[in-house]
Amino acid sequence: MTEARMRDPLWCYDPEEDRLRDACGVFAIYGQEDASVLTALGLHALQHRGQEGCGIAAFDGEHYHTERHLGLVGDHFAGESVRARLPGHAAIGHTRYATQGGTILRNVQPLFADLPTGGFAIAHNGNLTNARALRQELVRDGAIFQSTSDTEVILQLMARSRRRTVVDRFVDALQQINGAYALVCLTDDMVIGARDPLGIRPLVLGDLDGAPILASETCALDMIGARFVRSIRNGEVVVIRKNADGRTIVESKTPFPPMQQRSCVFEYVYFARPDSIIDGRSVYNVRKRLGERLAIEQPAPSADIVVPVPDSGVPAALGYAAAAGIPYELGIVRNHYVGRTFIQPKQEIRQFKVRMKHSANRMVLQDKSVVLVDDSIVRGTTSEQIVRMVREAGAREVHFRVACPPIKHPDFYGIDMPTERELIAATMSLADMAKRLGADSVGFLSVDGMYWALGERERNPITPQYADHCFTGDYPTELEDRDADRASKDFQLSLLAEVS
Amino acid sequence: MTEARMRDPLWCYDPEEDRLRDACGVFAIYGQEDASVLTALGLHALQHRGQEGCGIAAFDGEHYHTERHLGLVGDHFAGESVRARLPGHAAIGHTRYATQGGTILRNVQPLFADLPTGGFAIAHNGNLTNARALRQELVRDGAIFQSTSDTEVILQLMARSRRRTVVDRFVDALQQINGAYALVCLTDDMVIGARDPLGIRPLVLGDLDGAPILASETCALDMIGARFVRSIRNGEVVVIRKNADGRTIVESKTPFPPMQQRSCVFEYVYFARPDSIIDGRSVYNVRKRLGERLAIEQPAPSADIVVPVPDSGVPAALGYAAAAGIPYELGIVRNHYVGRTFIQPKQEIRQFKVRMKHSANRMVLQDKSVVLVDDSIVRGTTSEQIVRMVREAGAREVHFRVACPPIKHPDFYGIDMPTERELIAATMSLADMAKRLGADSVGFLSVDGMYWALGERERNPITPQYADHCFTGDYPTELEDRDADRASKDFQLSLLAEVS
Amino acid sequence: MTEARMRDPLWCYDPEEDRLRDACGVFAIYGQEDASVLTALGLHALQHRGQEGCGIAAFDGEHYHTERHLGLVGDHFAGESVRARLPGHAAIGHTRYATQGGTILRNVQPLFADLPTGGFAIAHNGNLTNARALRQELVRDGAIFQSTSDTEVILQLMARSRRRTVVDRFVDALQQINGAYALVCLTDDMVIGARDPLGIRPLVLGDLDGAPILASETCALDMIGARFVRSIRNGEVVVIRKNADGRTIVESKTPFPPMQQRSCVFEYVYFARPDSIIDGRSVYNVRKRLGERLAIEQPAPSADIVVPVPDSGVPAALGYAAAAGIPYELGIVRNHYVGRTFIQPKQEIRQFKVRMKHSANRMVLQDKSVVLVDDSIVRGTTSEQIVRMVREAGAREVHFRVACPPIKHPDFYGIDMPTERELIAATMSLADMAKRLGADSVGFLSVDGMYWALGERERNPITPQYADHCFTGDYPTELEDRDADRASKDFQLSLLAEVS
Amino acid sequence: MTEARMRDPLWCYDPEEDRLRDACGVFAIYGQEDASVLTALGLHALQHRGQEGCGIAAFDGEHYHTERHLGLVGDHFAGESVRARLPGHAAIGHTRYATQGGTILRNVQPLFADLPTGGFAIAHNGNLTNARALRQELVRDGAIFQSTSDTEVILQLMARSRRRTVVDRFVDALQQINGAYALVCLTDDMVIGARDPLGIRPLVLGDLDGAPILASETCALDMIGARFVRSIRNGEVVVIRKNADGRTIVESKTPFPPMQQRSCVFEYVYFARPDSIIDGRSVYNVRKRLGERLAIEQPAPSADIVVPVPDSGVPAALGYAAAAGIPYELGIVRNHYVGRTFIQPKQEIRQFKVRMKHSANRMVLQDKSVVLVDDSIVRGTTSEQIVRMVREAGAREVHFRVACPPIKHPDFYGIDMPTERELIAATMSLADMAKRLGADSVGFLSVDGMYWALGERERNPITPQYADHCFTGDYPTELEDRDADRASKDFQLSLLAEVS
Repeated sequence: MTEARMRDPLWCYDPEEDRLRDACGVFAIYGQEDASVLTALGLHALQHRGQEGCGIAAFDGEHYHTERHLGLVGDHFAGESVRARLPGHAAIGHTRYATQGGTILRNVQPLFADLPTGGFAIAHNGNLTNARALRQELVRDGAIFQSTSDTEVILQLMARSRRRTVVDRFVDALQQINGAYALVCLTDDMVIGARDPLGIRPLVLGDLDGAPILASETCALDMIGARFVRSIRNGEVVVIRKNADGRTIVESKTPFPPMQQRSCVFEYVYFARPDSIIDGRSVYNVRKRLGERLAIEQPAPSADIVVPVPDSGVPAALGYAAAAGIPYELGIVRNHYVGRTFIQPKQEIRQFKVRMKHSANRMVLQDKSVVLVDDSIVRGTTSEQIVRMVREAGAREVHFRVACPPIKHPDFYGIDMPTERELIAATMSLADMAKRLGADSVGFLSVDGMYWALGERERNPITPQYADHCFTGDYPTELEDRDADRASKDFQLSLLAEVS
Repeated sequence: MTEARMRDPLWCYDPEEDRLRDACGVFAIYGQEDASVLTALGLHALQHRGQEGCGIAAFDGEHYHTERHLGLVGDHFAGESVRARLPGHAAIGHTRYATQGGTILRNVQPLFADLPTGGFAIAHNGNLTNARALRQELVRDGAIFQSTSDTEVILQLMARSRRRTVVDRFVDALQQINGAYALVCLTDDMVIGARDPLGIRPLVLGDLDGAPILASETCALDMIGARFVRSIRNGEVVVIRKNADGRTIVESKTPFPPMQQRSCVFEYVYFARPDSIIDGRSVYNVRKRLGERLAIEQPAPSADIVVPVPDSGVPAALGYAAAAGIPYELGIVRNHYVGRTFIQPKQEIRQFKVRMKHSANRMVLQDKSVVLVDDSIVRGTTSEQIVRMVREAGAREVHFRVACPPIKHPDFYGIDMPTERELIAATMSLADMAKRLGADSVGFLSVDGMYWALGERERNPITPQYADHCFTGDYPTELEDRDADRASKDFQLSLLAEVS
Repeated sequence: MTEARMRDPLWCYDPEEDRLRDACGVFAIYGQEDASVLTALGLHALQHRGQEGCGIAAFDGEHYHTERHLGLVGDHFAGESVRARLPGHAAIGHTRYATQGGTILRNVQPLFADLPTGGFAIAHNGNLTNARALRQELVRDGAIFQSTSDTEVILQLMARSRRRTVVDRFVDALQQINGAYALVCLTDDMVIGARDPLGIRPLVLGDLDGAPILASETCALDMIGARFVRSIRNGEVVVIRKNADGRTIVESKTPFPPMQQRSCVFEYVYFARPDSIIDGRSVYNVRKRLGERLAIEQPAPSADIVVPVPDSGVPAALGYAAAAGIPYELGIVRNHYVGRTFIQPKQEIRQFKVRMKHSANRMVLQDKSVVLVDDSIVRGTTSEQIVRMVREAGAREVHFRVACPPIKHPDFYGIDMPTERELIAATMSLADMAKRLGADSVGFLSVDGMYWALGERERNPITPQYADHCFTGDYPTELEDRDADRASKDFQLSLLAEVS
Repeated sequence: MTEARMRDPLWCYDPEEDRLRDACGVFAIYGQEDASVLTALGLHALQHRGQEGCGIAAFDGEHYHTERHLGLVGDHFAGESVRARLPGHAAIGHTRYATQGGTILRNVQPLFADLPTGGFAIAHNGNLTNARALRQELVRDGAIFQSTSDTEVILQLMARSRRRTVVDRFVDALQQINGAYALVCLTDDMVIGARDPLGIRPLVLGDLDGAPILASETCALDMIGARFVRSIRNGEVVVIRKNADGRTIVESKTPFPPMQQRSCVFEYVYFARPDSIIDGRSVYNVRKRLGERLAIEQPAPSADIVVPVPDSGVPAALGYAAAAGIPYELGIVRNHYVGRTFIQPKQEIRQFKVRMKHSANRMVLQDKSVVLVDDSIVRGTTSEQIVRMVREAGAREVHFRVACPPIKHPDFYGIDMPTERELIAATMSLADMAKRLGADSVGFLSVDGMYWALGERERNPITPQYADHCFTGDYPTELEDRDADRASKDFQLSLLAEVS
């Protein structure tokens, strides 16, 4: 789900953080008393997928109850009152990535509409690549948009669909949109889920004592003690409802022509929680294997210790250390009490931003040759400060190793990134990068090495097994809005700057 | 503007207060730097027309900036930051009546839509009598409503209009709606105002150094030192914009067949501020005359003093005292530090609710025969407590006099009232009322007496000069939704119980 | 009770408002379930005596529960939870005047101390004239002050007293302090009250079904339906407790040599609520008589109407109009939705400050010769704007009449005032004042006229019946700190600028 | 610093968390512009020592500015405005442990007093063992306490001291108190630090470009890029001030008879941040050595993997894995988005509390024999849930290993712990513990093993090198209040239950 990104796909990137950001987590449950309490817990487990906003919609048999907030799930949906505020036996929820400033409440999900078929709430992880074109057409035809979110296009298409049932209208809308999506929806008597034809964004099916669950990752199932059933297939629509006997059933539809799955490789490299299982693979194990392969492809023979950039680099560093036979040490300590940004004193502190979150473990680093392992490098600004902090703590040598290939191309499927020219690997040679980072050497994993860690022999260049366009520039779908963008920069998405 | 009232026109009535409530105040200004600061001040002067919510929309030449809040104008729009938050040379604003509980932010105005003709913001005082029927039709045709407000019907009709210009679309929408409305609208280059064909709700035109202003009452003009130009005529649409020379002009359109004006008599009796001038008459003078005539129609010869129920009864009591030649005394003191409702102690306090706001002035009332004057009686619950409080302070006799006729019928044009069977005058004889209130006598003004105070000889029974249906049951328009209501109670306005 | 005023007695004066401010209201109740709920209601009735802060202390037989807040009583003590937060059968409370900025929570009362005799809470209306001298001595002797309030001096004197019982320690402290005070105190088994030897600040005794009450004004008794028993005498200490039989008794002590009472005349002229009875006189009646006498002393024969400056001038204007036989009209309407200060638009509005609160009733004032009546004039800044507003609304003549003598001298007993050179009457002739205010004439009541309204024949110059130093410069007590002040400005009251 | 603990030393223990809690962190800086900004950063680095409250006092040459808040440093002292709110070139700060409920703002530090020698602010890590006895004596002698904190005893002793200078008064007070303390104080021209005669609580001296710093741990120096100078010695008082030449000097005093240092062993085992250096030893290295020795003393030969309980068990688990030659795996993932406590759904979730913070990494644990390593066990409630969660994730065997000896005795020097009978190791055999935890085996480190990890050959039973009473029952000082406690439970510390 995105919005202003339709104008500039990259504006939400947080340069302070220098991390990629995912475009949300979704959760749904059907047929459980306390559906919203369970949804809150599921969203809490998916909090790493988005910290900007969160929302829950529940249906109590008569009314929908929706709350959408800026901030963390625990800040709004933890207390006793959730039960009374959001009653019902079915609920869906959403967490949204954090951005600097541009956040507005009316874009927080789930979105809701009174359709002629009844109420309809929807939550979306991903990004549509033709949302803007569709929106222009819809506005011309009399539609009033309440948000700037691409997700609302789906609602408006459904409202205007001539099909009779809500499921048919939903499928009608899906057949008009392109891009990446994992969707969960709530109607008067169903929960509906859908994954785009390539399965770019993840979605799994779980079960809690007979109540079906949909979630972005398996860690949300573990949080509430639910059983993992299976991954939703690419291009699959699942309809969860009661059948004539009153039994809850999960029906599967395939409204698209069959395509080979091509899920986003970044889920393994970066986004998903290490304890999640995505399309059958343990994220933690993949990351350790990325580190193992990195140790082989990019050795650092003179090194005394392997040090992870915490917490993102930890699994790869464990893999690297094991494969290289070099001791693994906590040379950097992470401060978990972070939230607000502190102001710089006038007497400037070096590596100020990094010190708020990380601290060099001086006694470990002193006089050592260090392999610093991280999962990825985006702009390199944070990496640069970390290398300097490690050096100032006394490290003799610093070899920077990155457990994925160089990131060179933007994403259009729900990941926030800086512009291409800000990506350090898009513009610099390895030697220049080392110089810029202040490292003695820099090494990346190869694309085939990444595929090896995922259990493939190598990347299949004809029909690649994963969406890996950020590394390869090979985009899995058309990019209709992006291409229109290049033609004209002027379309006004909304005249409303913001609303409270 | 109303919403859930479409289902039950009376649900918003606040029984604690036992007062009628108006359905909002509107304000607009065009062509002034600091348009939103001036709008905030204008709304502050109109605060008596609605304390539930308030909002301002401003246009800065490129973007619309809208803020809508629950609470008072001074709580949200008083500070320095308004200027930066709501920049622009044109702005409109809205205050909304207070209700118990049912308030939801998404119904606070101005409402906004991105139309194919550009942005459009709208604020509404009044109530449409066929909004629900239109809404049902629009939803069936694919419209998604973002509120339950009847005002949004106007936006949806405009979005779907096939006419080319925004003014033509606006007129197209007005020609489909019925009921009472004073509207102010903001577009990319205009401010538009409109008053319904009967002129039920008030709207005036003012001028501040060349910048035209629209407002519900003249007191909003006085607040900002603006000049009163004229009242908007019933059925008139005014378009305020720059002409080809860059000069600001006010164009007048009359898109309806000519009708005699029939404005709401309650504005004089109750709603408007005493210093306002409505359609040429001083509200304060009318109220004093209501009291004067009341003294003649309903004398209390044995009385020692005339005491107003503050503050509503003050002008009528001054008129009564002067006409009757009885001294006017402040026998009841009002406490202005009210806001929150205090809890009752376990040791119960008599007349608790009334004591929070009023206090008997014991030394004035002791052993006196008192004429208590109020502007109106709705349910009589507060009047009953006040009479008791006055008696307990030592009054020998209490004669209750009401400066308008008995209220016997509900309103459908934007006034909140209790149901018919709760109206004390709809169900009781004068003697029963006196008994219930604990008064020695009760007296009301006659309908013709009220017309006399308004400068008429009497009520014209064929073409009444005012909308006076609450006293007479003679409704000035069709009541399409009300009649449908009687047929079926089941239409679900929205499945969304509330949204944050 | 005051604090920084010890350094500069006048710093708290709010120049925006141009009104005198009282130094607080106090309330106490003993032997009633829900003591704190009743105290909250009593304080609400005393809210006009202080809007800056409020606090309640209750004792539940084991612990004291104290809450002190900035803001209004209704903002903090209205809700259901008060009962649980402040349990107990005895409670005392305090409201504090509003100041600009300098307010700090640690000075809000009641203050509390664990004394060797048990817990002790105290609330104070008034101001001590030797607090600073005593404080210096106490600090030198090892006392640590937790506030800058003069009231804390009483606590510290009690802590160090060598007397055995808490009442004896209290009397010991009173015998060392000078100035004005109405005090209410709460101990483990008593409520104690005291009024200074001259009775400058008011204090009354009431009764609610056997539970004794102390309050600054009778309006607090009326609020909770309590019976007025009597005024506390000057120099009286009352101890409310259970006797050996378990019956609640009110004991009276007189620890000072007998003196003639000399209560503050400003309570009648200005501070007290009109429905209160102070030392046997109706405040409302006194104010009407001030107006009656003013009509005789300062007639305006050419005038068409008498108009009060609302709400302060209303009773005097009624008296003036009746005595002069000139019609009384509401020529100025007060806006009760005030709280926050709105910002000025760039396009400046004339009489901006005054318009926020008052509005000219144009149709009443047009072409009239107007007598404007107010209760007092301090700096004259507001009066000046009101006169101009009345003129701009069309008044032909404006005669300003003030229902008290010229205010020429500062107060040191708990009233906030501007410095002497800012007092308009201290520096200008009547003609200059008229010119400055833009009035056709200005007239004040005489000192003897004021005494007449209070039921005296005239002021007794040897032993004046009232504390009237602001008009006469005749201070009823020594002013120890003030005199020291003139000698040296340097004593540092506290090194702590503020604490949260 | 403690308070109610004087009545019950253990009441603040948080049973939800099942962790020991330290009694605060302190920080001070002298002679730096932006002293409070730097103090905020230092406190942020010490946040792990207390999350309940935080405060800063700064002196600007004329006034003290103090702010004390409930909550985290970053919530109150991160923003731009700190500079203006807390101006000055010297500042001290304090973080306070988190408790359930009993927290009150008036106990948050720094505490402040106006002494005859000038202003004095103080912050305290530790706990006095004779505070209550001293307090009783002081109250009897006329002292009024503003808090229930033991720290205020020091202020009251200083206020009453007959010595002339502030340093002499401070030493006078120290000579009367017993227990554990690291103190930092701020006067009109000095910063003063002190460590108790045994050096139970840590305190270090740092330097930032000539500005001396005092802090609980070296990680606070690293945060602001300051240089570590040395640890403050046990029984040392340091006075930081400008000498006659205007140069900043650090003077050292030794007002106590010389004693052998005996610092608290728990700083290494548990409290301090791993990157800190306490009295010359790297905390991280000590923890790894605790794990190494544990592997030797308590092997688990059949185990497949070593899994830390994150984050507390990580360094010891790394040591254990290395020494045992068993792979180290992240079998448990920690959720860092924790704060609020979520409510349990009605459909109960097993191991609910633990799941909020930890998640089993199923693919790592399945069918494995696991050595679970944690740094300590207190009540065992969390450990029990973690063991179950690990088993339900498929672990074949679970061997619980604890990197310190069994905790059997309460602390009285500033650590919050449950009562003795709640300590699992105080009441159960190893076999019973294993059964209760659901583990296949449980093993603790020996006391001598712990001393080995600290670089000692063994514990010296005559003059133990560390304060290790929680393991051994051998308390390093008299426990005056504790002993009095056993005699009588009735002393009322304060009658004031709470204050806002």
